[in-house]
Amino acid sequence: MVKVGVVGYGVIGQRLADGVALQKDMELVGVADVSPTLAIRALKEKGMPYNFYLGMPENLHMFEELGIPVSGTLEELVQKTDIILDATSAGVGAKNKELYAKYNRKAIFQGGEKNSVADVFFHGYANYEKGLGKQFLKLTSCNTTGLIRSVDCLDREFGIEKVAITIIRRVADPGDYHRGLTNALQIDKAPSHQAVDLMTIMPHINATGILVHTPVTHGHIITVVATPKKKISKEEAIECFKKHPRIRVVRIADGFLGNASLFRYARDLGNPRGDMYEIALWEESVVNSGDDIMYAINIPQEAVTIPETIDGIRAALMMQPDRISATSETNKYLGMGKWIQK
Amino acid sequence: MVKVGVVGYGVIGQRLADGVALQKDMELVGVADVSPTLAIRALKEKGMPYNFYLGMPENLHMFEELGIPVSGTLEELVQKTDIILDATSAGVGAKNKELYAKYNRKAIFQGGEKNSVADVFFHGYANYEKGLGKQFLKLTSCNTTGLIRSVDCLDREFGIEKVAITIIRRVADPGDYHRGLTNALQIDKAPSHQAVDLMTIMPHINATGILVHTPVTHGHIITVVATPKKKISKEEAIECFKKHPRIRVVRIADGFLGNASLFRYARDLGNPRGDMYEIALWEESVVNSGDDIMYAINIPQEAVTIPETIDGIRAALMMQPDRISATSETNKYLGMGKWIQK
Amino acid sequence: MVKVGVVGYGVIGQRLADGVALQKDMELVGVADVSPTLAIRALKEKGMPYNFYLGMPENLHMFEELGIPVSGTLEELVQKTDIILDATSAGVGAKNKELYAKYNRKAIFQGGEKNSVADVFFHGYANYEKGLGKQFLKLTSCNTTGLIRSVDCLDREFGIEKVAITIIRRVADPGDYHRGLTNALQIDKAPSHQAVDLMTIMPHINATGILVHTPVTHGHIITVVATPKKKISKEEAIECFKKHPRIRVVRIADGFLGNASLFRYARDLGNPRGDMYEIALWEESVVNSGDDIMYAINIPQEAVTIPETIDGIRAALMMQPDRISATSETNKYLGMGKWIQK
Amino acid sequence: MVKVGVVGYGVIGQRLADGVALQKDMELVGVADVSPTLAIRALKEKGMPYNFYLGMPENLHMFEELGIPVSGTLEELVQKTDIILDATSAGVGAKNKELYAKYNRKAIFQGGEKNSVADVFFHGYANYEKGLGKQFLKLTSCNTTGLIRSVDCLDREFGIEKVAITIIRRVADPGDYHRGLTNALQIDKAPSHQAVDLMTIMPHINATGILVHTPVTHGHIITVVATPKKKISKEEAIECFKKHPRIRVVRIADGFLGNASLFRYARDLGNPRGDMYEIALWEESVVNSGDDIMYAINIPQEAVTIPETIDGIRAALMMQPDRISATSETNKYLGMGKWIQK
Repeated sequence: MVKVGVVGYGVIGQRLADGVALQKDMELVGVADVSPTLAIRALKEKGMPYNFYLGMPENLHMFEELGIPVSGTLEELVQKTDIILDATSAGVGAKNKELYAKYNRKAIFQGGEKNSVADVFFHGYANYEKGLGKQFLKLTSCNTTGLIRSVDCLDREFGIEKVAITIIRRVADPGDYHRGLTNALQIDKAPSHQAVDLMTIMPHINATGILVHTPVTHGHIITVVATPKKKISKEEAIECFKKHPRIRVVRIADGFLGNASLFRYARDLGNPRGDMYEIALWEESVVNSGDDIMYAINIPQEAVTIPETIDGIRAALMMQPDRISATSETNKYLGMGKWIQK
Repeated sequence: MVKVGVVGYGVIGQRLADGVALQKDMELVGVADVSPTLAIRALKEKGMPYNFYLGMPENLHMFEELGIPVSGTLEELVQKTDIILDATSAGVGAKNKELYAKYNRKAIFQGGEKNSVADVFFHGYANYEKGLGKQFLKLTSCNTTGLIRSVDCLDREFGIEKVAITIIRRVADPGDYHRGLTNALQIDKAPSHQAVDLMTIMPHINATGILVHTPVTHGHIITVVATPKKKISKEEAIECFKKHPRIRVVRIADGFLGNASLFRYARDLGNPRGDMYEIALWEESVVNSGDDIMYAINIPQEAVTIPETIDGIRAALMMQPDRISATSETNKYLGMGKWIQK
Repeated sequence: MVKVGVVGYGVIGQRLADGVALQKDMELVGVADVSPTLAIRALKEKGMPYNFYLGMPENLHMFEELGIPVSGTLEELVQKTDIILDATSAGVGAKNKELYAKYNRKAIFQGGEKNSVADVFFHGYANYEKGLGKQFLKLTSCNTTGLIRSVDCLDREFGIEKVAITIIRRVADPGDYHRGLTNALQIDKAPSHQAVDLMTIMPHINATGILVHTPVTHGHIITVVATPKKKISKEEAIECFKKHPRIRVVRIADGFLGNASLFRYARDLGNPRGDMYEIALWEESVVNSGDDIMYAINIPQEAVTIPETIDGIRAALMMQPDRISATSETNKYLGMGKWIQK
Repeated sequence: MVKVGVVGYGVIGQRLADGVALQKDMELVGVADVSPTLAIRALKEKGMPYNFYLGMPENLHMFEELGIPVSGTLEELVQKTDIILDATSAGVGAKNKELYAKYNRKAIFQGGEKNSVADVFFHGYANYEKGLGKQFLKLTSCNTTGLIRSVDCLDREFGIEKVAITIIRRVADPGDYHRGLTNALQIDKAPSHQAVDLMTIMPHINATGILVHTPVTHGHIITVVATPKKKISKEEAIECFKKHPRIRVVRIADGFLGNASLFRYARDLGNPRGDMYEIALWEESVVNSGDDIMYAINIPQEAVTIPETIDGIRAALMMQPDRISATSETNKYLGMGKWIQK
């Protein structure tokens, strides 16, 4: 059993912990953070299903006052694990890396860190083999992770030369008060970092894109104009997407009108927190533009990177030798692709 | 075991079904609706934990095509139950009532129906005894249900003469596309129906209020200016609220900054759909205004009426003789009040 | 002096009236509507700068009670004019057309009507000559009008073969309460009608696109991936856009962060209602995607169609023989292109 | 002619400049700021109707590159004026005060500064006489300014003892990107500073209140529960409000559905920037709560403090001896109260 620790128990960290806890071949040793946030209070109210380690010992009294049991320090957690999933705020991971290196532990960082923090910039489906045995991996960010799923899916079947993307970005997560936008769209300097990141992971593809922030919380939408080696029909593209265990092809006609329908559906499915690990792709969005294929996907920003991060554990610790066997294990324990109709 | 059916499997109906399923002294016979909505598709994807009955037999082919098992007609569901929880769209309940009457079944309607549909306008804490043995009950709406919890709480301990409320109303539920407001506040003609409804349930209190719609989805906030028989201190009021099993007293200082923090917390708690049955009351909002007491509460609109509706089953079927014993049973099975520190 | 009437005094109608009133070679005979809306009340409070004609004589008493002078009926207005700008709600224009035909008057309809209402589907820059002398014109909708400005601009200089667009659509105008979206993105079936409409106006271009509604009010943003006959550099494209009198090239670096910055700027410029006739194009959004050029534009939905509608008057009444002379006149009176630095 | 300078040319500063420019007994010497913001670029594009003075001489090259004429330094502006209206960001005013004191000039600060910056905390209607001849005044903030107008109006006619307010606060101005809230309501610790400020200005009234931030930009809404010395009927209250030149009584029935309707109406009126100096009060919101009177007002946050600030000039420079004569002059030049029907 591979021993895993999660450092940073925020939006991503909580979901990483839950995702690891579902993997039958992994053990979640514990989670770490620095102060009694609402997430920690919820952990306490749930009865401490995970052990908690404290990253800032001077705050111990806060936890004692609240009756939250502390199992040790961050340093102790690191020592007890084979690999750390670092989901701290951007920049903190680079500092924590020294601790992981001190004990010669492996670690996977999230998209907020700089690429230089890691030996490899990683995506479970697109470049699993590059992560094999590496000490430090960095995951693609939420948009890039979902985007690459769809582009890699087409690329492996048809060959893709070029993509031009438009990211309609949700600006905050539900419950965020430290950031937000009110009645405004905001545009970033092009090309968007997601397009650049895609080229880092898939260097044979030319990519560019524009990102626009929108005042919503329930998932980004990305439109993709993909130029294939030879024309792909709409039907072929849809068929290809439908077979991917981390892509859910949905229909407007069935009631999936936008990102908020998907969130509601996930809540009604009983998914914890109403989360979705899969991206959704709207069947009625797929159109040909000359020989290019254009389509729209939904990125559930809170949970979409969890499967690929778990793939990263498999790569770093060489649990499986290749992308197919590794992602299959991750998918099985996360219940991904169950919606695919045989 | 009391047999319960739920008619209308939308936002409220789904939650009523789940709430009834948790009651160890009730049996959920099934749920009914008229077409294969996303909620029904989610029920199917979950493996049909509840039996489904069809209210519009001409749509049977739609269910067959999707492989959704149908256990019978709405009329058959009614015959198999002791009581129906009707959570159909406003106006439909009044029509369905004929069917319930035909088989001499009891029924509880939600707040969207007219008061005249029922024998009694009901709230589990404020007038449980009025519902005892009645055939048709109508629940207070979401805002009124939560508001009355707090006013009844103060009234029973201190005596309340008058309330003036301001309702800051969420305009749509997460996932709603059929209604919405964009960058606008909208004001209704005063007095708001919630104030009028409070007076119907608690006729000894004078109530008025103003309602303003706001473009958010995660819970109404109500401010209440309550005039007591004699001055209540801030501390006494907070103490009183803290003892109520359906009120969660929270603090801004702990990170509960608004309605969205509460939604996030409920998601992180692992509550199905991120729902809350309890209203929240902000400790730092409680202030004296002369002899009056002023405070703010959060109303989680999707789930707040579930406990009082279940209380209604207990009243209509005379399962418990009084409000204390009835609400205790409901609370026990729903896990309400667990956060209260002894 | 050409005599013009405006029928329908809502968001578009008010702006059409103001735009016509600025044309020194046109006379605004009056405006018509059916009831004393806020727009009519504002007209009254301003001292009736325009004569008002009543489209629904049975409502005359309402106007009398409010002291709003009525200059005659809609039918009388039609008789006094050479051309009517019909800005009524979708569908009403088709009915009004009978009245215009009865008196053999010309008319221009807005984008909400079906194409079949008119002899030609019109855009001042792209197909002015097709409108010459025609009786009934229909304007492109707001998004299509602005989109075509930019595509026609590139097409005339470089030749464009194909465009793939993503429309990030504002869902309501400021002050709209009859429609709105709250915390949700909504996707439409592709291809969007704007892409189809572009092909109707510019049949030599292949176009497709995806439209996503967003909960904001201050302008649509469209990203365009345009395939030119031969590669256009980023700099060439920007240069080309900068010369267009109805395109304002702006920079994020200067503070134009999104659609809301543009609205604020227009307010601070002193433009009536904070309106902009011009589309904005972000210099930092322009990127190459292989040989394609990608860019983002802002569409100020309330006012963008005014210039092209006025061009339509010029075409229908053959006031100028060609697009250059006609649009120059319109631009001169509207003050368009003043920001272009020589 | 009184000589006035405006320091800080942002949302408030621009409007102060325009308001002063309308006063026939005042001369606007110029406006000052520190960098070429969009507001300054708009001033340039309009042809420099106001002289510009530079508060940060090291930035002069930026203005030269853009061709924006600079008339001198901030220090020079101060020397040329009798009084400065300081509308800089919170905290900067306190520093600028040293400069004003150095040249023995008078100054009026906006609500963001601490009360201690000034000799008197000022409101044109409520305590004009306290400002007479003072060197440094601080204006009430936007919410407090509008709130006090309504409370002072009732208080002078009927006598008010106590108010409990609920502020439904707009979280950002149109065009703000540095702050915002997305799908969330946020509550502040009670009592709100506006209630406390009201008591500072009107010490004979007991006030408290709760403030909730909402994700909109077009005006705050405040509900007020006012306890009069003796019962005021709804009709008496409305009559009283209707006579106030800075309160516009509007009706939902006429189409004034909320803050966004008012913004649209002001745009359609042709008001510069779509601004309103007046607060609006909804006739249908006025209700009795026992002997108390409850009502709702709209606060147009961008412009509401302009009239009272101009009153402050009149007080500080002793242009008029009392509130009636001073506010009448301000109102006359700003065109306030024209909507009152005789």
